[in-house]
Order: sequence, then structure tokens, then C-alpha cells
Amino acid sequence: MALTLELLASRLGCEFDGDADCLITGVATLQAAVSGELSFLASSKYRAHLAETKASAVIIAARDRDACTVNALIASDPYLTYARATRLLYPAEIHSGGVHPSAVIDDAAQVDATAWIDAHCLIGPGVIVGANAQIGAGCVLDHDITIGRDSRLMANVTIHGHATLGDRCVIQPGAVIGSDGFGYASDRGTWVKIPQIGGVTLGDDVEVGANTTIDRGALSDTVIGKGVKLDNQIQIAHNVQIGEHTAIAGCTGIAGSTHIGKHCAIGGHVGIVGHLTIADGVQISAKTFVSQSIHEPGFYSSGTPVELNARWRKNFVRMKQLDKMARRIKMLEKTVRKLSNEV
Amino acid sequence: MALTLELLASRLGCEFDGDADCLITGVATLQAAVSGELSFLASSKYRAHLAETKASAVIIAARDRDACTVNALIASDPYLTYARATRLLYPAEIHSGGVHPSAVIDDAAQVDATAWIDAHCLIGPGVIVGANAQIGAGCVLDHDITIGRDSRLMANVTIHGHATLGDRCVIQPGAVIGSDGFGYASDRGTWVKIPQIGGVTLGDDVEVGANTTIDRGALSDTVIGKGVKLDNQIQIAHNVQIGEHTAIAGCTGIAGSTHIGKHCAIGGHVGIVGHLTIADGVQISAKTFVSQSIHEPGFYSSGTPVELNARWRKNFVRMKQLDKMARRIKMLEKTVRKLSNEV
Amino acid sequence: MALTLELLASRLGCEFDGDADCLITGVATLQAAVSGELSFLASSKYRAHLAETKASAVIIAARDRDACTVNALIASDPYLTYARATRLLYPAEIHSGGVHPSAVIDDAAQVDATAWIDAHCLIGPGVIVGANAQIGAGCVLDHDITIGRDSRLMANVTIHGHATLGDRCVIQPGAVIGSDGFGYASDRGTWVKIPQIGGVTLGDDVEVGANTTIDRGALSDTVIGKGVKLDNQIQIAHNVQIGEHTAIAGCTGIAGSTHIGKHCAIGGHVGIVGHLTIADGVQISAKTFVSQSIHEPGFYSSGTPVELNARWRKNFVRMKQLDKMARRIKMLEKTVRKLSNEV
Repeated sequence: MALTLELLASRLGCEFDGDADCLITGVATLQAAVSGELSFLASSKYRAHLAETKASAVIIAARDRDACTVNALIASDPYLTYARATRLLYPAEIHSGGVHPSAVIDDAAQVDATAWIDAHCLIGPGVIVGANAQIGAGCVLDHDITIGRDSRLMANVTIHGHATLGDRCVIQPGAVIGSDGFGYASDRGTWVKIPQIGGVTLGDDVEVGANTTIDRGALSDTVIGKGVKLDNQIQIAHNVQIGEHTAIAGCTGIAGSTHIGKHCAIGGHVGIVGHLTIADGVQISAKTFVSQSIHEPGFYSSGTPVELNARWRKNFVRMKQLDKMARRIKMLEKTVRKLSNEV
Repeated sequence: MALTLELLASRLGCEFDGDADCLITGVATLQAAVSGELSFLASSKYRAHLAETKASAVIIAARDRDACTVNALIASDPYLTYARATRLLYPAEIHSGGVHPSAVIDDAAQVDATAWIDAHCLIGPGVIVGANAQIGAGCVLDHDITIGRDSRLMANVTIHGHATLGDRCVIQPGAVIGSDGFGYASDRGTWVKIPQIGGVTLGDDVEVGANTTIDRGALSDTVIGKGVKLDNQIQIAHNVQIGEHTAIAGCTGIAGSTHIGKHCAIGGHVGIVGHLTIADGVQISAKTFVSQSIHEPGFYSSGTPVELNARWRKNFVRMKQLDKMARRIKMLEKTVRKLSNEV
Repeated sequence: MALTLELLASRLGCEFDGDADCLITGVATLQAAVSGELSFLASSKYRAHLAETKASAVIIAARDRDACTVNALIASDPYLTYARATRLLYPAEIHSGGVHPSAVIDDAAQVDATAWIDAHCLIGPGVIVGANAQIGAGCVLDHDITIGRDSRLMANVTIHGHATLGDRCVIQPGAVIGSDGFGYASDRGTWVKIPQIGGVTLGDDVEVGANTTIDRGALSDTVIGKGVKLDNQIQIAHNVQIGEHTAIAGCTGIAGSTHIGKHCAIGGHVGIVGHLTIADGVQISAKTFVSQSIHEPGFYSSGTPVELNARWRKNFVRMKQLDKMARRIKMLEKTVRKLSNEV
């Protein structure tokens, strides 16, 4: 899509400075942009790149305006405005309403006339697909699933477990929503499956990454709050609840029945054990092992530093001696105190 | 499904106490249950909830019977009985035998007349699908695969590598069984693929979680013992063997040729390196890094505690100094011993 | 495939010793091999198995030749020769060119006449499929994708994001290439998606494991160098670059914009945070947490040792006291020095 600088500024609700008719056709970084492209200065520390940019216009904060020698869009938050400008210049690919002839739609499904169902989908009985929703090729929605309006399921997504997705959700390829939770009762050493009969609820504007899995609840629902963003390869176990606008990076796993607060930011490869409570506004750095509830907002971490294997081996051995080392220090302190008194 | 209390008790092989004709239509927790629903008291510590439950009946141990004011099913293991009652009240969704017209079945495949093959499946030559097996939509079984009777593959499952699945297996959506193992020989800095020609064997009653991957063996088979339960997003490398009735939680990875014993319980996000042996009856807590074999049953762990990032940074730095700290303690002890003798 | 010893030796470019007409029909380990099978001795430490092997021939280094009592193929690197022999004896399963009638091919796609498109694929507009490429059942290539010649996509692979795959790539089932990167701008506590408009480039001879995910770049491309081998369940975030011939084991996650060098070997379950640089020739052991750039080749590690939970708990508590322990040691040293001077 091509837009003039004036029209872009108007759509983005910000002022511009320069040639109103300058035609913008794309977005790129300051270093990579060519003529016709829009760039952005997200932080003043990159001001040096402004002098050399070949961008036709730059989204910039008022305080950096003087350093910009090309057309400018003045924004209080240039990074946020870049996100919005990109959406205007690269609108999401939307099919007009219809059903691909190879898709299988159950008679007892309700697909809005404006929704698109792509090739080789299976839409089972009791499935409701809202207005303008886009169901990518190879998706399977078994039965009694609700997809909100303007939601987009990319290819090969599987939705089971009576899941309900809000409006404007985006589900990346290979994601599985509503698989059975991992619930078994022990019967003298063998496992008896506990049928998982709860559902899954995703609020509006939830994004689920590629190959991420979200289990249905055992009895009640697994609940993902509105605006939650989940990266790729995340595992959300049964009966987890995630508060609104929390973001979680890739490969993180959250065990059963744990409740995560609102507006949390959780790094990649984090493991959170089951039945915990994480407060609102908690940030957790990558690869942290969360084995107890976190009741106060703040920034939390665990883990050990990377070092050359030869050095690490020496420290690694000592980790098994830590408690003994602490006791030896205590004993030394006691002896030294005694010695000090005697001298 | 609706069953009377008397019929439920009879099917579950337990005694009941109360209205034999009370109709039970579902299962819920003590707090959430409404009239017509069955609940359970898995532990005496939740007895307080008994007084307020609106459940029509409760599965309960004899010792807690007196605290129950509604109909009761008396069970020696209420949680196990709850698992079985749930299966009776919510029978697995089974299609009657047949093949969806959009599925592609090779002439050289043998699909039992009582099995169901759903939409857009590919069942290749040499595939055998047993009685009452259910193959969900979008599944691909390339060739020379055997699926035991009463096994259920949910949607978008891929099975390659001459895999053989036992009876009553359940494979959640997106799982991949029989992908190539990660085997390469080095040729002066480039990698030459070692064709993976082994197979995969799953015993009876194995469950495989959503998006879990199990590689075929390099030469011989990868073997998953009967009754093994694998959660979501687990990676099982080539030639791994997992003993009967072992359960493994989500996101755990097991490297090539490692042998896991029977009746193990392995937490989530555990990493087990290759060519190890883990004894029967080993329990491993979440996020543990297993870098050596475990020869004795017991409960094993590794990892560091979560703390506020500011405090963690201080401790994190010290982990690289652990060996030096241990040497300094030893030196101090020597000096202090000498001093003590001199004073 | 069956080949005589002489023909095998000729194809592999190595000498043989024994019956030129001996027919070889398969490969197995020294212990498992039966008559007609070829085995290999990768390391002299397994020489003891040579005496008992029932293999009809063994690939062996010249230095071990005397210990071999059966036919021999003499190779400078027996393991590498085993890899190549296996490929000769078990050629990749290749369909002849064509399109399965259930596949959907857009009119604006270019599929080479020698390529094979299997059942229930969707090949969108602008997709180019090269000579002899094999696209497995259920694959979705949305649009503007290029697949190089002789590349093989196994079943249920999804490719989006204008991805370009080189020649001879192998993509295991369930892999997702070109999903949206995890990019959002914050707008007063809610997340605004940054449309991901970059692509993905895979060089020649790249292998991608089952259910591995590779995100498209935000603005420029995510780049996987030629000869890179990725195991299962790996997550590669947007704008990551991986140098040629690097191999990465399962469950590892690499956060956005990190650049990995050439000829690296990265273990399983490793987490590498974003915006780092890892030098060429770096080896990283399993489960390492890489939180800073690595500028020198070498072998790197982090992590804590597995031990009995009861002991681990005692050490685990001390990890929070490490900095204090270090300060106490320093204080002790100071006091002891003073005492030594006084005595």
C-alpha cells in the first residue's frame, strides 16, 4: 500500500514536517531504507544513523527533530507509531468471505458469510466462526468451538476442547489449543487417565505463537486473558490462568493450575511449577526456574552464568558442597572470634 | 451420559450411601458442583468444602464419610474413582467405523471396518489400522505403520518411521512420531546425514502429548514402554528407551540412546543428556539438568532458586568464584589451625 | 537396495578386502548385524565386538584391519563412510514428479514437472517448487515461497513469510518456517503488534527438525546458513542469523537478533538471549544459559549438578547466600591476617 506523508500523518494522528505529497510505500531501518521508505528513530542513541539514512521520511520524537534532515513524522512514541504505520502500509492479508471447495464444513457449524475457510480445513458441528475471521489451510476445529470476529488462524492449527476465542485473536501455524491436560490417577503403579472435560477461553486480542500448546481444563477452563501475547513453543497446562496483557517469550512452560497476573513479562525458557500464584506486574528473566509463588511485582531471575567448560567444571563440583562450605565459614568465624579474644 | 447413583456405584465397584435413584449427569469440584453433579474429596484437608457443596453426590473415603451431608460413593481411593467415574459420565467421542470421503487411503493399507479415518488424512501403503481406532483429521501415516485397536490419534498427527503403536494409545494433536533422528557424520567441517532407518515402538496404553516429538531410531528402534505418559512438547531423541508406566511432564528433552527406567516420574523442562541410564523408580523435579546416569531410585533435583534480579546478580557473579571460594576456605582453615596451635 | 562389496567400495571410493561378490542388503551395529548386513567400527575401543559380529562386512580403519575376521571396507573415517554407505543402501524415498489429485495448487505457482506434491497440500500463488523437490502430505506454502531443487518437506510442514529454501534442504514434520516474530510495541500497558514483514532464508543443505519453528524477520530476513542442522523443537526468533554448518540440538531457543557463528555445536535445551553475538567455532553444552556474547571459540557451559533432592535443598538455599558467603570469607581473611601479625 502507498500513502502520502500527509495521509499517513493524518491516519496516525501525528504531525508531519516536510513534503506532504511524498509517497511512502514501505518501512525499513534507518540503515536499510531506500527512497520511498519510512524509517523510525526509537531511541536518541541511534541519532548518528539519521545523517546517512536514505529513507524518504522518519518517525521521530520532537526532541530529535533537529537531527533529521529528511521528512519527519513527529510522534511522542516513535516505536509505537512505527508499529501502527507498518500495519497501514502492510495491511494483513485478508481473503474475502467464502469456503475453499476442499474444506469440510459440518452442517451444524455456523460460519459467517464474511469469514474465509481455506483449503483442507475441518469445521465440525457446533463450531461458530465470526465475521471476517480467517481460518488458514489445514486447520481442524473439531466441535463446539467459537472463533471471534476478525480472528486469524494461520495454517495447520488444531483447536479442540470446546475452546472459545475472542475477537482479533491471531494463532500462528501449528499451535494446538484445547488438547487434553496431563491428568492421571495412580492405580498401583499404572496411570488411569482423568478425562479432561474443561474448556479453554482466550480473550480478545490474544496472540498464540507457532507450535505453542494450550491444554483444556480438567474440570473448569484454562483461561488466557485479553491482550495476552504468547510466543512460539510455549506450553500452558490445564487450568492455568494468565492475566490480561501479559507477554510470554518462547519455550516457556507453565504447569497446571498456576495463576499468572496481569501485565507480566516472562522471558523465554522459563519454567513455572504448578499451583503457584504470580502477582500482577512481575517480570521474569529468561531460563528462570520459578518453584514458589511470587507475591510482589518486580524483576525476578535464577540461573548460573555461562563460562568456559573447564572453569565451569570446577565450580559445578563446588555447588554440591555449598552447604558444607557455609558451615565451614560459620565454624571459622567462631574459631577466629575465640582466637581474637584470646590474643 | 446420565447414570443413577446405584448404577455408578455398581460400575465403579464401590458402595454408595444415600438415594439410589439420584441421577448423576456430570462431574465438578466440591466448590463448583451444582445439582446433578458428582464431586470428590481427594484429601481430608479439603473436608471444609464438604459442608457447602451443592453436588448431588461425593466420592469419599470411609474415614471422611461422617463429614459428608449429601449422597456418597465410598471409595478406598477417591481420586482414582473420580477418574473412572468421569470416564463413565463422559465417554470418549468415538465415530462409528468408516472413512471420510476426503481422506486418502492407499490400496495397500489395511483399515479395520470398525476404525474411523477422518477428513484429509493420508493413510499410505502398508499401514494397518486396528479395530475401533480413531484417526483424526489431517493425520498423515506415510507407510508401514501399525496402529493398535482402540487407539486414538487426534488431529494433525504425523507418523513416520515404520512406527508401531500398541492398543489404546492416545496421541494428542500435532505430535510427530518417527521423524528422523539427529545423526550426522562430520566431513571436514560439513555434516553428512546418517539416514535414520530404525523404527519406533509404542507399547499399549501410551499417551503422547500435543506437539511432542519422538524420533525413529538410527539403526534399531526407539522404544516407549507400555503405559508411558508423555505430556506436551517433549522431545524424545533416537534410540531412547522409556520403561513401562513412566510419566514425563511437558517440555522435557531426552537425548539420544538414553535409557529411562520403569515407573519413573520426570518433571517438566528437564534435560537429560545422551547415552545415560536412569534406574527404575527415579523421580526428577522440574528443570533438572541430568548430566550423569542415576543408578538408584529416589528423588533428584538441580537448579537455582528464583530471587529478585538485583540480588540474583550478586549471587550470579559469585558462582564463577565458587572454586576459588572453596580454596580460600581451605586456606583459612589451615591458617586458623596453625594460629590456634600457636596461641 | 542390494550392492556387492566391490560395487559398494567403488561407490564409496574406498578399498575392500574379501569377497568382491558378497551381497550387502542392509546396515546394522556389530552386535545386531546378521548375514548380508554391513557394519562399522567407529572407534578402536569397540574392537572386542569384531570377533563376534555376524555382519558380512565391516567398514574399518586400516589400523583395525587385523582384528576383522570378515570382509572389510577400509576407510579413513569409518563413521563417515557408514553414513554414506547407509545412503546408498537405503536411498531416500522419492516419488516421481506429479501432483496428488487432492492437493491444491494455485495457478500462479510454479511447480517443476519433476517435483512431487502429496495429498492435501496447499501451494499458493508465487510459490516456486524446484526440480525433484518432494512436498509431503498436508504441507502449506502460503505464497511467494521458493523451495530449492531436491529439497524434501515431510508431512504437515507450514511455510510462510516469503521463505526461500535452498537446494537439498530437509524439513521434518510439523516444522513451521516463517511464522510471525514476537514483536510488539507497548501502548500504556497493552501490546500493539508490529507487523512482521521480513522473510526467512535457508541456505543449501539445511535440515530442520520436527516441530521446530523459525520466525520471519521483522524488517529484514532471518538467515540460516548453508549446511546448518537444527534438531527438533528448536525455536529461532526473528532476525536471528546462524552461520554455515552450525548444528543445534533439540529444545534450544535463540532469541531475537542474535547472531551465531559458523561451525558451532550447540547442545539441547540451551537458551540464548537476544541481540548477542556468538563467535565461529563455539561449542555450548546442554541446558546452558547464554546471557552474554561469546567472542572466542571454545567449549562453554553453565548449570548446576543433579543430586538427591534432600541434599540439593540444602545447597539450593545457600545459593541465595553466595554473595554474603564471599563477603564473610573476605572478612575472615582480613581478621586472620591481622591475627597472624599479632601472634
